[in-house]
Amino acid sequence: MVNYEPNVVHSTGSYRVIGTRPARHDALERVTGRALYGDDVHFPGQLYGKVLRSPHAHARILSIDVSRALALDGVKGVVTSGDLAQVTGESVNAEGLVVDHGFLANNCLAGDKVLYRGHAVAAVAATTQEIAEEALSHINVDYEVLPPVLSARDAMRDGAPVLHDGLNGSAPDEAGTDASTPPNVADRIEFVQGDIATGFQEADAIVEREYRTIAVHQGYIEPHAASAWWGADGTITIWSSSQGQFMVRDETAKILGIPVSKIKAIPMEIGGGFGGKTLVYLEPVAALLSRKTGRPVKLLMNREEVFEGTGPTSGTTIRVKIGATREGRITAAEARLVYEAGAFPGSAVSAACQCIFAPYDIPNAYIEGFDVVVNTPKSAAYRAPGAPAAAFAAETVVDELCEELAIDPIEFRLMNGSKEGTRRVTGPLFRQIGNLETLEAIKSHPHYVAPIDGENRGRGVASGFWFNVGGPASATASVNPDGTVSLVEGSPDIGGTRTVVAMQLAEVLGIPVEDVKPSVVDTDSVGFTSMTGGSSVAFKTGLACYEAGREIIRQMVERAAKIWDVDVEDAEYHDGGVRHKTDGALTMTFSELAAKLNVTGGPIVGSANVDARGAGGAFATHVVDVEVDTETGKVSIIRYTAAQDAGKAIHPTYVEGQIQGGVAQGIGWALNEGYFYDQDGRMMNPTFLDYRMPISLDLPMIDTVIVEVPNPRHPYGVRGVGEVPIVPPMAAIANAIYDAIGVRMTQLPMSPSRILEALREKDLNPTRVG
Amino acid sequence: MVNYEPNVVHSTGSYRVIGTRPARHDALERVTGRALYGDDVHFPGQLYGKVLRSPHAHARILSIDVSRALALDGVKGVVTSGDLAQVTGESVNAEGLVVDHGFLANNCLAGDKVLYRGHAVAAVAATTQEIAEEALSHINVDYEVLPPVLSARDAMRDGAPVLHDGLNGSAPDEAGTDASTPPNVADRIEFVQGDIATGFQEADAIVEREYRTIAVHQGYIEPHAASAWWGADGTITIWSSSQGQFMVRDETAKILGIPVSKIKAIPMEIGGGFGGKTLVYLEPVAALLSRKTGRPVKLLMNREEVFEGTGPTSGTTIRVKIGATREGRITAAEARLVYEAGAFPGSAVSAACQCIFAPYDIPNAYIEGFDVVVNTPKSAAYRAPGAPAAAFAAETVVDELCEELAIDPIEFRLMNGSKEGTRRVTGPLFRQIGNLETLEAIKSHPHYVAPIDGENRGRGVASGFWFNVGGPASATASVNPDGTVSLVEGSPDIGGTRTVVAMQLAEVLGIPVEDVKPSVVDTDSVGFTSMTGGSSVAFKTGLACYEAGREIIRQMVERAAKIWDVDVEDAEYHDGGVRHKTDGALTMTFSELAAKLNVTGGPIVGSANVDARGAGGAFATHVVDVEVDTETGKVSIIRYTAAQDAGKAIHPTYVEGQIQGGVAQGIGWALNEGYFYDQDGRMMNPTFLDYRMPISLDLPMIDTVIVEVPNPRHPYGVRGVGEVPIVPPMAAIANAIYDAIGVRMTQLPMSPSRILEALREKDLNPTRVG
Repeated sequence: MVNYEPNVVHSTGSYRVIGTRPARHDALERVTGRALYGDDVHFPGQLYGKVLRSPHAHARILSIDVSRALALDGVKGVVTSGDLAQVTGESVNAEGLVVDHGFLANNCLAGDKVLYRGHAVAAVAATTQEIAEEALSHINVDYEVLPPVLSARDAMRDGAPVLHDGLNGSAPDEAGTDASTPPNVADRIEFVQGDIATGFQEADAIVEREYRTIAVHQGYIEPHAASAWWGADGTITIWSSSQGQFMVRDETAKILGIPVSKIKAIPMEIGGGFGGKTLVYLEPVAALLSRKTGRPVKLLMNREEVFEGTGPTSGTTIRVKIGATREGRITAAEARLVYEAGAFPGSAVSAACQCIFAPYDIPNAYIEGFDVVVNTPKSAAYRAPGAPAAAFAAETVVDELCEELAIDPIEFRLMNGSKEGTRRVTGPLFRQIGNLETLEAIKSHPHYVAPIDGENRGRGVASGFWFNVGGPASATASVNPDGTVSLVEGSPDIGGTRTVVAMQLAEVLGIPVEDVKPSVVDTDSVGFTSMTGGSSVAFKTGLACYEAGREIIRQMVERAAKIWDVDVEDAEYHDGGVRHKTDGALTMTFSELAAKLNVTGGPIVGSANVDARGAGGAFATHVVDVEVDTETGKVSIIRYTAAQDAGKAIHPTYVEGQIQGGVAQGIGWALNEGYFYDQDGRMMNPTFLDYRMPISLDLPMIDTVIVEVPNPRHPYGVRGVGEVPIVPPMAAIANAIYDAIGVRMTQLPMSPSRILEALREKDLNPTRVG
Repeated sequence: MVNYEPNVVHSTGSYRVIGTRPARHDALERVTGRALYGDDVHFPGQLYGKVLRSPHAHARILSIDVSRALALDGVKGVVTSGDLAQVTGESVNAEGLVVDHGFLANNCLAGDKVLYRGHAVAAVAATTQEIAEEALSHINVDYEVLPPVLSARDAMRDGAPVLHDGLNGSAPDEAGTDASTPPNVADRIEFVQGDIATGFQEADAIVEREYRTIAVHQGYIEPHAASAWWGADGTITIWSSSQGQFMVRDETAKILGIPVSKIKAIPMEIGGGFGGKTLVYLEPVAALLSRKTGRPVKLLMNREEVFEGTGPTSGTTIRVKIGATREGRITAAEARLVYEAGAFPGSAVSAACQCIFAPYDIPNAYIEGFDVVVNTPKSAAYRAPGAPAAAFAAETVVDELCEELAIDPIEFRLMNGSKEGTRRVTGPLFRQIGNLETLEAIKSHPHYVAPIDGENRGRGVASGFWFNVGGPASATASVNPDGTVSLVEGSPDIGGTRTVVAMQLAEVLGIPVEDVKPSVVDTDSVGFTSMTGGSSVAFKTGLACYEAGREIIRQMVERAAKIWDVDVEDAEYHDGGVRHKTDGALTMTFSELAAKLNVTGGPIVGSANVDARGAGGAFATHVVDVEVDTETGKVSIIRYTAAQDAGKAIHPTYVEGQIQGGVAQGIGWALNEGYFYDQDGRMMNPTFLDYRMPISLDLPMIDTVIVEVPNPRHPYGVRGVGEVPIVPPMAAIANAIYDAIGVRMTQLPMSPSRILEALREKDLNPTRVG
């Protein structure tokens, strides 16, 4: 099945390390407090910074007077956007996303306008945290308050307040509707396949619905933390917790208008990211404060700042229309996705468009996406960015269609499911994928065939897709004299990837994974590695490790031949050691040879750099049972089973953990989470007391089924697994709620009050719903 | 001249980077305080350690009671040698030196005996430095005081107190004098060439003298500092200032009896080493305290601890006898070198034996060396370890012989000088060396031909040799998108080697050295690299950089061919870029190609690992003018010129700096420095007020002449330059003093009181001297 290279060193399917469940290398370090996170750096002469944030959702900054703050004892410096280089232009980052340098900079420190409540306006550095906080109240900002727009609907209305002058929706390829582009639309994209007019004519049943979701936050445990030290030599060292030290380096360089090589970004351990740490907030500000004061400066956010000053998901409005024949074959599908980008362009609407119909083979389809700026924090990535809201819409419409056609939802999906060779609405053909296999896995799962007992209980299913990404990655592995291997890589470890990539190196070398010692190092100490995002690490950095291992093998065979004084062609790597092909007496284990290296020609280091392409998309099918308390509106999750194609599960426990984590977050998103704003754009619930994430009492044991359809573009068949688990839950739960109480939920969160409201509406208009 | 590889990318002699004098990469960082040294790490929950040291030079430890110390508020743990694994055995380190693990351990924490005043007995960890210091006085050690021996002469006497039971001089190869080996002799070595009896018979003049030197300290500015954090997972992270993070890792592992891969040693910047930081003192103790307390522990030495608790040079007694014909040809030479190892075996007597007669082609020679333990701190390396005292003896005898034969000392050395093909007394043949060239350089130097004016002024010359070493080294270089290259290497930078090795990488690549960004990284992040010692770094790590650069070139040519869609054979690296061999339109600079890498196949990283052999010996000839104040005995250095073969001076300013630094230290050693003990083995001058190192007022401008006789075993002809400059000064100054006032000095330091004493003796016995 694995056809990556003809010359692979392993035998397909007979792995020693891959597929096992070793403890992660940093397990004890993390649980005993030795692991160093963003806040865990301390320097002589260090200053503490604090960011002044806008109290208005939309205002023009007329003037900023920092003189009183500077006069405070202990205050060493204040910066505003006036201290930023006036960078312009845009570039494409390693993730293929367009980055506008000016927007990037002004999200870190507001330019002439503040665009959301919590927008950074100025920052102060002082000798203590307390003085820094006090100093904020001594900065006088003169604002001209402007009317805010808080939703895409309002933002796209004629006459709406405009956030950015000159912002223009891009011209769609065919429709040429430029002139009529509504205000505050940063981008409009569309995808066409076949002819939807014909397709809907062929349909015997059509369901069309509109859905609304509000912003949710990734809710990582560790607030953002960054320290920077700008040296007299013009070089900057940055310590921060992020999803990519190279992202920190490159974005900070863009914002500061300096070459990337002037910055050394040191990755601290990261206490959760989920996409929310894929861009910089504090790093450039800490750097500017350090330049101004000549001292190292640390900036920390508190939870309120995290909620108000960093990027949640987009709020969305999604209209979906799907038609099918009475036999259950989809004939046409249409979607209009409006995503709120927050204060600066760049929602995940494009990704959402690529995912929304991906589980289906659809002959005629039209997808239209809008990226709309509004006066809320700039949206950021969150696990399969864009896809969950899209799946909530599409998979609920599919469920309604199944009901109308009286077809089992799994059968319907199997009938219409994407498989190898299916052309996606958004262009590319699928290679080998595991969509039908996850459907089959659920279809035959005890959960799906079990009866549902009890009042107000129901079952729902939904599918999900995330395309996954690859990208550039590097790995360098050094053989130690005690037979271990030190592995240096560039992917911040969020979900156990240190161990997952080390396992791939261990597999190549035929040594225990405990003998590989992985480290995630700074931007000066490893080759470029794109972010920990897009479920890419096990794939791309794993591939780099695989290649580095092969390079070690090449050198070890060469060395053994030298030691034995035989032709290198007569030696071969076999079973975690080197042997002579014919002379059985000549054999050395990895450890034996490792011990000899320094005196037989020097150490052996294998280094590899890849631009990993062909990440291989991930599919998931979930089934959930719920019980609805019709008096309180509370939805309880009774049972949950998630099947997912992992390609090959390198470390099954971590795959299961990713699935469970994604489902847990999806349940929170489905039932409770969300940004609630007042009319002035003030978030009403910026604490974990009021922003209600699920706790263990809210969750059942989440069963997982790992399906393995190898990715042909990776030597071990790896697919990314981290994101797709969050895609199906909202739709699956909505479908289960309908099954339980007969109401179709079209808004998230499906909170108790919404449930009660829907039940009330059903009582009033029994024909409208269901 | 350079014949390292047929396939070199540079043209001999036409360098762009090599031979220039760029500012070092870390210059501003160092002078502005941003560089982080041993003490500059801080951790949450960190404890402060302090070492209890023996007040006796020789005593048996009957018991240690730590209970009162442990009862102190704030004290978290105490360790003694009872906490050490009882390691035994020995191993050969990467420098080829035999390391006895038990001795190594017991020098860090005394076993059943203390062997010198200042010997570590116990260590305490507490919440503050002050509590830790106070706690020391609450540790009760019950000693049985033993008589100390403080000199080799005393130690070798029959009936002398014995430091180590079972210690035995090794059997000499031929003489078989085992039975008569005196006490406390750890090792006896000998080297024979020809037949000295015949040789001395052929001599017309013979001079024989005995010399004595006492211990001197390297006097680095930064005292030892180490922090360690022993995790619950059994892995240890160590931050310390040393001459080798891999040495720290490997020695600590030996002492603790654990595999090397359990330790990550992070090299902090080093504030001077000169050989004195080539072994561990604090690291294993900090690790043990951390294991005991579960918290990170920092240990610092103060200056007194550095003097009393770390390794100075050996004190020596050296007898030299040289005979020559009246024409000036040496016929025979004999030397007996007795080196005090301090408390544990391992003086530099072997190196001294290898160097003492190296500048001369001697047909008949006999060299005998003794390694003797005494109750003083274990001796450590100091710049060309062993050689300066040996040269003091041999070069003074040569001077006396020249006087007797009335031959100019430079002419005499030219007549007898070692050159390519000369067989050394200690075995190997010399390859291409620059001995005669440095003599010629001094012979024709304005200094040497200038008249000496003034009373009590004199001139002296002396030669010196240091063999230099190579060893394993690694380098990994990553190309950044802005056209710069991040270089990762493993050699702690004492003398500007970051820049020197970066220059070699820049030269290969044809890019400015400012575009290379070198970092010295931890033991997990780079392949094994032997210590910064033996003047090895510019040679070995430079070679690794050269090879890493060639690997980058290979990949860049391959990548350019891929981008151009041409055969890789049709592309070539030229002038800091890639070009098509025939199509002039196809060309990319390094920067242009660098910017494209991440989207054309991924980053490019070049990694190389070498075991560099053939370091190429270094020769130096010094001439010095002195003025002696015959009333006070003070010797003033009037003029100093040092010529030295650098092979090829990669960065001439740093070569000059090494020469000047070595001479400055040699002047201190010659005139003032030394450990003065009372009869109980207490050092009387353990401060920089009393241990008199030269200050700028004591030193003239030291002129340097760089001679370049390329080392054929390095692509750029590099030889180590750091150590040989300290070899000739003591002899040159002694010879100049004789020229000035007619007394032959046979003891170091040649302090005012010694000068006055010698003058008094000359007055009493005018025929004895001169």
